[in-house]
Amino acid sequence: MNKVEMHHTIMAAKARKEMTWDHLSELVRKAPVWLASVCYGMNSASPDVAARICEVLELGEDVAIAMTEFPVKSWEKTVPQDPLIYRLYEVVGVYGPTLKDVIQEKFGDGIMSAIDFSMHVEKIEDPKGDRVLLTLNGKFLPYRSW
Amino acid sequence: MNKVEMHHTIMAAKARKEMTWDHLSELVRKAPVWLASVCYGMNSASPDVAARICEVLELGEDVAIAMTEFPVKSWEKTVPQDPLIYRLYEVVGVYGPTLKDVIQEKFGDGIMSAIDFSMHVEKIEDPKGDRVLLTLNGKFLPYRSW
Amino acid sequence: MNKVEMHHTIMAAKARKEMTWDHLSELVRKAPVWLASVCYGMNSASPDVAARICEVLELGEDVAIAMTEFPVKSWEKTVPQDPLIYRLYEVVGVYGPTLKDVIQEKFGDGIMSAIDFSMHVEKIEDPKGDRVLLTLNGKFLPYRSW
Amino acid sequence: MNKVEMHHTIMAAKARKEMTWDHLSELVRKAPVWLASVCYGMNSASPDVAARICEVLELGEDVAIAMTEFPVKSWEKTVPQDPLIYRLYEVVGVYGPTLKDVIQEKFGDGIMSAIDFSMHVEKIEDPKGDRVLLTLNGKFLPYRSW
Amino acid sequence: MNKVEMHHTIMAAKARKEMTWDHLSELVRKAPVWLASVCYGMNSASPDVAARICEVLELGEDVAIAMTEFPVKSWEKTVPQDPLIYRLYEVVGVYGPTLKDVIQEKFGDGIMSAIDFSMHVEKIEDPKGDRVLLTLNGKFLPYRSW
Amino acid sequence: MNKVEMHHTIMAAKARKEMTWDHLSELVRKAPVWLASVCYGMNSASPDVAARICEVLELGEDVAIAMTEFPVKSWEKTVPQDPLIYRLYEVVGVYGPTLKDVIQEKFGDGIMSAIDFSMHVEKIEDPKGDRVLLTLNGKFLPYRSW
Amino acid sequence: MNKVEMHHTIMAAKARKEMTWDHLSELVRKAPVWLASVCYGMNSASPDVAARICEVLELGEDVAIAMTEFPVKSWEKTVPQDPLIYRLYEVVGVYGPTLKDVIQEKFGDGIMSAIDFSMHVEKIEDPKGDRVLLTLNGKFLPYRSW
Amino acid sequence: MNKVEMHHTIMAAKARKEMTWDHLSELVRKAPVWLASVCYGMNSASPDVAARICEVLELGEDVAIAMTEFPVKSWEKTVPQDPLIYRLYEVVGVYGPTLKDVIQEKFGDGIMSAIDFSMHVEKIEDPKGDRVLLTLNGKFLPYRSW
Amino acid sequence: MNKVEMHHTIMAAKARKEMTWDHLSELVRKAPVWLASVCYGMNSASPDVAARICEVLELGEDVAIAMTEFPVKSWEKTVPQDPLIYRLYEVVGVYGPTLKDVIQEKFGDGIMSAIDFSMHVEKIEDPKGDRVLLTLNGKFLPYRSW
Amino acid sequence: MNKVEMHHTIMAAKARKEMTWDHLSELVRKAPVWLASVCYGMNSASPDVAARICEVLELGEDVAIAMTEFPVKSWEKTVPQDPLIYRLYEVVGVYGPTLKDVIQEKFGDGIMSAIDFSMHVEKIEDPKGDRVLLTLNGKFLPYRSW
Repeated sequence: MNKVEMHHTIMAAKARKEMTWDHLSELVRKAPVWLASVCYGMNSASPDVAARICEVLELGEDVAIAMTEFPVKSWEKTVPQDPLIYRLYEVVGVYGPTLKDVIQEKFGDGIMSAIDFSMHVEKIEDPKGDRVLLTLNGKFLPYRSW
Repeated sequence: MNKVEMHHTIMAAKARKEMTWDHLSELVRKAPVWLASVCYGMNSASPDVAARICEVLELGEDVAIAMTEFPVKSWEKTVPQDPLIYRLYEVVGVYGPTLKDVIQEKFGDGIMSAIDFSMHVEKIEDPKGDRVLLTLNGKFLPYRSW
Repeated sequence: MNKVEMHHTIMAAKARKEMTWDHLSELVRKAPVWLASVCYGMNSASPDVAARICEVLELGEDVAIAMTEFPVKSWEKTVPQDPLIYRLYEVVGVYGPTLKDVIQEKFGDGIMSAIDFSMHVEKIEDPKGDRVLLTLNGKFLPYRSW
Repeated sequence: MNKVEMHHTIMAAKARKEMTWDHLSELVRKAPVWLASVCYGMNSASPDVAARICEVLELGEDVAIAMTEFPVKSWEKTVPQDPLIYRLYEVVGVYGPTLKDVIQEKFGDGIMSAIDFSMHVEKIEDPKGDRVLLTLNGKFLPYRSW
Repeated sequence: MNKVEMHHTIMAAKARKEMTWDHLSELVRKAPVWLASVCYGMNSASPDVAARICEVLELGEDVAIAMTEFPVKSWEKTVPQDPLIYRLYEVVGVYGPTLKDVIQEKFGDGIMSAIDFSMHVEKIEDPKGDRVLLTLNGKFLPYRSW
Repeated sequence: MNKVEMHHTIMAAKARKEMTWDHLSELVRKAPVWLASVCYGMNSASPDVAARICEVLELGEDVAIAMTEFPVKSWEKTVPQDPLIYRLYEVVGVYGPTLKDVIQEKFGDGIMSAIDFSMHVEKIEDPKGDRVLLTLNGKFLPYRSW
Repeated sequence: MNKVEMHHTIMAAKARKEMTWDHLSELVRKAPVWLASVCYGMNSASPDVAARICEVLELGEDVAIAMTEFPVKSWEKTVPQDPLIYRLYEVVGVYGPTLKDVIQEKFGDGIMSAIDFSMHVEKIEDPKGDRVLLTLNGKFLPYRSW
Repeated sequence: MNKVEMHHTIMAAKARKEMTWDHLSELVRKAPVWLASVCYGMNSASPDVAARICEVLELGEDVAIAMTEFPVKSWEKTVPQDPLIYRLYEVVGVYGPTLKDVIQEKFGDGIMSAIDFSMHVEKIEDPKGDRVLLTLNGKFLPYRSW
Repeated sequence: MNKVEMHHTIMAAKARKEMTWDHLSELVRKAPVWLASVCYGMNSASPDVAARICEVLELGEDVAIAMTEFPVKSWEKTVPQDPLIYRLYEVVGVYGPTLKDVIQEKFGDGIMSAIDFSMHVEKIEDPKGDRVLLTLNGKFLPYRSW
Repeated sequence: MNKVEMHHTIMAAKARKEMTWDHLSELVRKAPVWLASVCYGMNSASPDVAARICEVLELGEDVAIAMTEFPVKSWEKTVPQDPLIYRLYEVVGVYGPTLKDVIQEKFGDGIMSAIDFSMHVEKIEDPKGDRVLLTLNGKFLPYRSW
């Protein structure tokens, strides 16, 4: 079973059981964004986490094995088109050099890792319109000379 | 004075006064990321904020006027190349569909605004390597039918 | 049933019943452009609207369910090629900076939302050749500082 | 004087005289969007309209001559990046095939002209947030066989 | 039946009957280039012309219906690669600004329509090598102010 | 003097003398489109033709020498954006495969040369709107086996 | 039978018969590069040559017919990636302007035809490493004025 | 002196002295194509060859030094547009896979070097039109396992 | 059997036998990176090496034959997206001109061959985090004049 | 002084003093590739290393300050064209998925860092042609769940 088939099998089971990412998160004890990224085939899970997900969603061992495989990460549109994803791309375009300056002033010459990294989504209720709170937490990696 | 000239004039003054974004933020009472984005020419400031920045950095009125102009936002590389900025682009590519699913499950069909929006950078000290905490806070905009 | 299959199922039923978007609009009490965008899989409908559409077109519940799913919006050609759509792209290219100036002079620094948004098409009969009247109505979103 | 120099000369005069597009429109008796597009170098004006604009803005004859020249229309970014302009591009991407269907159902096989064409921007005040009303009016051109 | 299937069905019938575009043109009383563009799925035919084509080629009514549908015009290669088509693209690249100048000097500011348009191919026999004569005839559309 | 400087020098002289391409054509006894392409720097002229053009426009020998140099042909926008030129590109996109079929049916496997080639623009007056008649005449080059 | 199927059918037969291009060339009395280009679907053969190839490779008449059809020439990668083909692209990039200058100095303003054209590959044995000798022979086409 | 300035200095001297590549080749005893590529800044010359070229063209030592520098090879248009160069690109596109097959059948798995490489242009006079003979001679480099 | 099918057949057998590239390397006596590149279809193997691989993995002769075929090398994403591969692309972008300078200063004008080439991966254990040691060994090819 | 001016100032001094990267490396006690990357403006140096480089090359303090600034890393050609750099890009294209498999089999799911990273170039003399030995040493960064 490849990652695409795995993804559709999981999404169908999730819909059938009317399971949300938040509920799955509580049952599996991993964060919702990371869990969803595994189910979208963009991260691999350890065998025991894969087993727990499959147990909760009543899926077979072939799905669990597919979850543990190391994914080739890829996205089709170099510039994303879906409005929700494009807005994030726009933030990177508009604020990229600003963030580089602010981060490097605070930390020195280096980058924020996208590998040793975690991300969370929260809902902030607000009478003028609810707000999305997105938190990215990445290890700072300094450039070193040699 | 156009935005490019304004940017270089501000950066030179900021370096001369050895001012950090954090310190400028305290003096001007606006967040460092937003302040930096104004100084990079990617956001406009109200006349009084522009005046405060110019007072602190001892810059002339022509800089203040340039800060209040509405910028044309643009970035040169469709796929960013600087490693710090590319890592953020990679996060959008790898986690874009995941975030869309998690956000829309929580909020309904819609997007997170990149206009009614704020962003903060924090340093989390860690003996295994400091971490960058990036917080994005955007209004949720639901699609409406008509 | 995915959005592509849903689209073709609806278009076939619409042709079979010789239903126009205007007539469907009257029966379902939603605007023709929005209705068509739902049937093209580019917007989601609420369950009751989806049910009304399916009732009018005599389509099954699987179509109604597909209509309520949140679509991933995407278009194949970065620069559109069909002449009718290209002309609209050309208008954005030719008049984009002009519109930015006129809108921002009237409203301040901000954008016209493409999410909190509606659109209508009207036919203006004219002996020298009929005219298409396209109306776009979007909420103005001001940039805010933080 | 080429179109780029003409544009900057006009914008400087317009700022110096604190003239808005709406006010210029009243004085010159042409619509604000069209006037702005001439001043951005994307349309040519007839000699008498060019003369009226230059009279109002107290500009020399070389500006008037530049306004009457036929422009080469061009835009730098194939996919626009400024958020205000990108949202219009997104509308063309998301609603392009929908509009094609709705327009052609109403008018037959053909296009809406971007040449025999006019456009207006209005501000609709609204306590929940003002709205931008954009009206495009283009001649329908039917495909003909031969 | 979609336009792709329609195209292949027609081309097979045309080959089977050893019919040329010129001969089909005489029988159907429409020009060869336009007829071919309909059969390639790039233009729609009126019901009676579609019926005549199908009668001549002994094709069923589903082909005639497909011919009357309004096509989405599209081409795969932004820069064409087949040498015959590339040479035409090269002519547009090399002579584009020249033609703009010559046409606008003769007609004023405007364009040559590609919609209200016809095209013919003729063979000019020549002992030094036959020549292709390509004639394009398009309505001039003047830009108008508003 | 390079081709860009030559072009601007010629265009200025042509404007000063209020000379049209048609009039220049009569005086120099070469076709207007070809003459214009030489003046745009996209074709080279023989020394005597270059001399005649310079005589008529009262230009120096350095312009005549620049005209005789073999140009590097190039265009900036892979997909043209000026509406007049884009419409020609659209014609190549929409009718390219159609023309290939019609031409090759008439002539055999080969191409229409863009080198051994001429082009003319004519104005056809018409009460419903004047028409542009564009004639392309290129040698047919058959593919040969070896 | 289309050109893709034709190609695979021929290559399978060629492998089965352990036939080289050189041997096929001797039997069919056409050059190996041209023969191979026909079998790759990039050139058409006359009926008698197609028949000879099919006779030698013991292939049916449908293959012969497919060989006589006029191909649409196309290649997938705008910049080739296979190292053998990329090296040729690199030669065009590195030496293109050099060749233009050398050829036009020798022949006048014009091009080397890629249609009235032939090409050969020879092996030059060399103790320091064998060498590939590639010969391109194309008719010079002069630009002509009109 | 950089390679661009060197190129223009050489070309001006070559024009002043009415020197052809063939004549320069005889005087310097290197092939015309290689000499021209050095003068276009795409290859470096050894100090003695550079000195001979500068002696013949009466150029200073700074030009000779610039000729010996190792060039960064680059070309502006990924797909060339000048017709003479495009035709060579077209040959690579149309015949690339064919040449790969013919060369690898003769030599085994490997490539023709573009570094250990030479190229010549010859004129073949022909009453039906002169022909360009282009010869490429590159070392075959076999892939090796390890 | 084509290279894609061959690849999947080999990977399935390798997984079934729980064979690592290192272990396969010992059994077949070729380096792991080269062996893997053959199994990914990017290099060809000699018949005896192919036979040894198939013997070890208990695969049929059709797999061995597919391994000996000369591959067309190709990659889908011009700019790679998988983070592991992108980091290598980034190294080429960031250090490319640096490496060119350092290598050419040491060796003269020329390149490092990617054909007469080998590559190895080693794991360096380190308490602060293991390190990947990548070794590339390519023949230096000097540019030669002619 | 920006990075571009700094680069040219350093390269001129290095040429004037006939200093090689190897010699500079011995004097400054940093590796040649890293030193060169600092001088090309692609890495920043600590103040004391910058001072040592400037001392050796007899350059002013402004150069030293420019060396300590954090660079924005960028490269102009998405697909490199200089043959030496292209060959490295080709290696990433051809061997990318192979390396991903071999590295991840050895280390688990993760990447090789391009930040915590070093690189060396060595010359291996060989009577059959010298060889370039390129060593890349990067920290392995494992993906972590959260």
